[in-house]
Amino acid sequence: MTLKELYDDIEKLVDKEVELEGWIRSQRKQKDFGFIDFSDGTCFKHIQIVYDNKISNFEEINNFHFGSAIKVVGKLIKSEGSGQAYEVKATSLEVLASCDDDYPVQPKRHTREFLREIAHLRPRTNLFQAVFRVRSVAAFAIHSYFQENGYLYVNTPLLTTADCEGSDQMFKVTTLDMDNIPTEDGKCDFSKDLFGKKTYITGSGQLHGEAFSMAFNRIYTFGPTFRTENSNTKTHANEFWMIEPEIAFCDLNKLMDIEEEATKYIVKYVLDKCPDEIEFLTNFVDNGLKEKLEKLVSSEFKRITHKDAVTLLKEAKVKWEFEPEYGEDIAKEHEKYITEYYNCPVFVYNWPKDIKAWYMKLDDKKETALAVDLEVPGIGELIGGSERETDINILRERCKELGVDTEPVEWFMDLRRFGGCTHSGFGIGFERLIMYLTGIDNIRDVIPFPRTPRSCEF
Amino acid sequence: MTLKELYDDIEKLVDKEVELEGWIRSQRKQKDFGFIDFSDGTCFKHIQIVYDNKISNFEEINNFHFGSAIKVVGKLIKSEGSGQAYEVKATSLEVLASCDDDYPVQPKRHTREFLREIAHLRPRTNLFQAVFRVRSVAAFAIHSYFQENGYLYVNTPLLTTADCEGSDQMFKVTTLDMDNIPTEDGKCDFSKDLFGKKTYITGSGQLHGEAFSMAFNRIYTFGPTFRTENSNTKTHANEFWMIEPEIAFCDLNKLMDIEEEATKYIVKYVLDKCPDEIEFLTNFVDNGLKEKLEKLVSSEFKRITHKDAVTLLKEAKVKWEFEPEYGEDIAKEHEKYITEYYNCPVFVYNWPKDIKAWYMKLDDKKETALAVDLEVPGIGELIGGSERETDINILRERCKELGVDTEPVEWFMDLRRFGGCTHSGFGIGFERLIMYLTGIDNIRDVIPFPRTPRSCEF
Repeated sequence: MTLKELYDDIEKLVDKEVELEGWIRSQRKQKDFGFIDFSDGTCFKHIQIVYDNKISNFEEINNFHFGSAIKVVGKLIKSEGSGQAYEVKATSLEVLASCDDDYPVQPKRHTREFLREIAHLRPRTNLFQAVFRVRSVAAFAIHSYFQENGYLYVNTPLLTTADCEGSDQMFKVTTLDMDNIPTEDGKCDFSKDLFGKKTYITGSGQLHGEAFSMAFNRIYTFGPTFRTENSNTKTHANEFWMIEPEIAFCDLNKLMDIEEEATKYIVKYVLDKCPDEIEFLTNFVDNGLKEKLEKLVSSEFKRITHKDAVTLLKEAKVKWEFEPEYGEDIAKEHEKYITEYYNCPVFVYNWPKDIKAWYMKLDDKKETALAVDLEVPGIGELIGGSERETDINILRERCKELGVDTEPVEWFMDLRRFGGCTHSGFGIGFERLIMYLTGIDNIRDVIPFPRTPRSCEF
Repeated sequence: MTLKELYDDIEKLVDKEVELEGWIRSQRKQKDFGFIDFSDGTCFKHIQIVYDNKISNFEEINNFHFGSAIKVVGKLIKSEGSGQAYEVKATSLEVLASCDDDYPVQPKRHTREFLREIAHLRPRTNLFQAVFRVRSVAAFAIHSYFQENGYLYVNTPLLTTADCEGSDQMFKVTTLDMDNIPTEDGKCDFSKDLFGKKTYITGSGQLHGEAFSMAFNRIYTFGPTFRTENSNTKTHANEFWMIEPEIAFCDLNKLMDIEEEATKYIVKYVLDKCPDEIEFLTNFVDNGLKEKLEKLVSSEFKRITHKDAVTLLKEAKVKWEFEPEYGEDIAKEHEKYITEYYNCPVFVYNWPKDIKAWYMKLDDKKETALAVDLEVPGIGELIGGSERETDINILRERCKELGVDTEPVEWFMDLRRFGGCTHSGFGIGFERLIMYLTGIDNIRDVIPFPRTPRSCEF
């Protein structure tokens, strides 16, 4: 049985024989007995194995190396010692796969920098057992929320020949021989490439998502995304995951309702399903974590316009590094101030159009974009969304203003001509959500095998 | 309310006022009244809207163009006519977004070839409403099965600098200027690329998945995958989705148990959640579909060795295009014969090692690989899996034999040295599963925006 199955049914199993397969995390050896800290990865909890010299291979057992895979048969008992409530008194212990002496995951605390260098082994530590289980559970929470609420999951393509997002942010993809690029008039001859055109990996599934929301009403994407940003910060990675819902017959107000409901659902789901992980992360990573998450679930999110937010910032008695301005984006320090001022997640909506994307709907005076950012305490922007421009003429005008070539996305323009009703959507950076849920402050530590500039190891 | 909410609660809503937003699929106009075939994409069912000249804007309504988005207020009534059990007698009808005259989705049956040319609009047709809802529900069934059974969902990286899968099958990814490749000694200077090395998009998350299964016991991946195959067939696409579970302390027999259980769970889930879609697909795409799926759920899968399968084929009174041989792969015609012979899904296991991958475990005599393919009636191979080689020496020998460079995957070798117990895993091609679930015979029709050689449109 797995350790999870054992703990799920533990009261009934006391004094019964159990059989477990998993790994030795550490071992204390005495002359006539010993203890093994055992876990099998199916739940956050470990269990202590007690053995003594009545077992025939006692000598061998005392020579086990931590990290080895073992099979344990024994009786589950209520522990007499303090510290753990249950333990297994082994009647048989067998090594299934040994562990070499140079095993780098010692039974002690390692630095996160060191653990990044052994990304293939770090999932075995308590910290990463907690982080990656939260990641998995949060992913399922997201699917559950959207499926329960009638959304269609759509797998939008990653390969694209349209560069309207800004091709400098996108990886190029090719089957050509990079050592021997075929040329035509001195330039790369993409007609010889697999798709016959210059091809990219996209940074967003939104445009395709809109096509599906005009057919299925409400949809969501959830998949990997790529940016070429040559930026080595704690919050940037070149490969990350995004969730992009899109909803028909939905305006900006309803969009905020949905974002609030979805965020609370996901956080509550993780709190319910990962109590051990959240407790560990609260104790060892971020003391305020559990309280912060519980508060989010029960609070009502504040909603203010960008204009009111800037007024609030201007009136604040704070010496800013970046002076807040009505026509401009708000900086990290501003986000921090706003969420601390209201002491809850805050929607900032109706943004200056010049700093927002071409597909966002403008207000009637064409001054602001009907966009909304959700700012949460401790992390800043968690979700970005907007109502979409449905007027094809305004859309074409905006593209012209912003230098967006519409030719490769004429199909997207079509959506406006054929029953293209009011609709809205948003994007959640999945890693940012996991950082919020775990208190981890470096994106490299919430991605199984992170990809950052000059670092594509493993 | 949505049409799904209406149908979920329809008995209670009869004779009540309802308000719906959705699209006109078609319209029949008479002098004093008219009918609208209405759907909103939230469920497969449509509903009929009846209106008459008592509505103030009757003239306007009679000029609506199909494809327009409308808002309907009216009373839900049991229909007197035959054909539909319920209809809405409109008291108010309003166009929310009109539809241009050149709308290509006519209220008639279009060819699938034509619909591929309007991939942004085809999700609005009944066929693609059915196919893409089955796809979404099947995706959630997969997540549900693995999460309910204690598997960790892990997002393995797509970007990789290891080419051990065979780099000729992998797309290269770059941030370099393709028109102006920097060179060193006449070759592309990848040190100037974002990662400082030649980089690919991977075709599998298995190796990384194994690292996580050695920490979490059982894991699964579910994400997009890429192959450069220049092959224009009904079953090949350059971008598709895969599910790759990996299970510790699991041998080949247990693997077959899991594959069988998972397959039945997913098929049953879709049958339960998509009765309207499966009925439509059975009526219009594949007459045997529903029966085939129900039979799979209740049948016991047959298990035979590759050797016995070849013997069976050799003894068959069939004139083969490709003569079956003990040391060779089995062809499409053979797969068909085997599944028809047993009239149920068939596991073929213990394959000649020379036609299987380097990481698969060999039997004690080193003759066969402990690999298994699941063959299903009508589609052939649905799942491929194997026990993994845990002996590092045999693994290195196999790599040498097959010309696999182990240097970039020394971390993978490490897994064998540090408690690397018996483990097994499998891969499901998601699109192949959707083809099986829908009866659709062309992969282009189960992918929202398919990518195939020389075709990367939309």
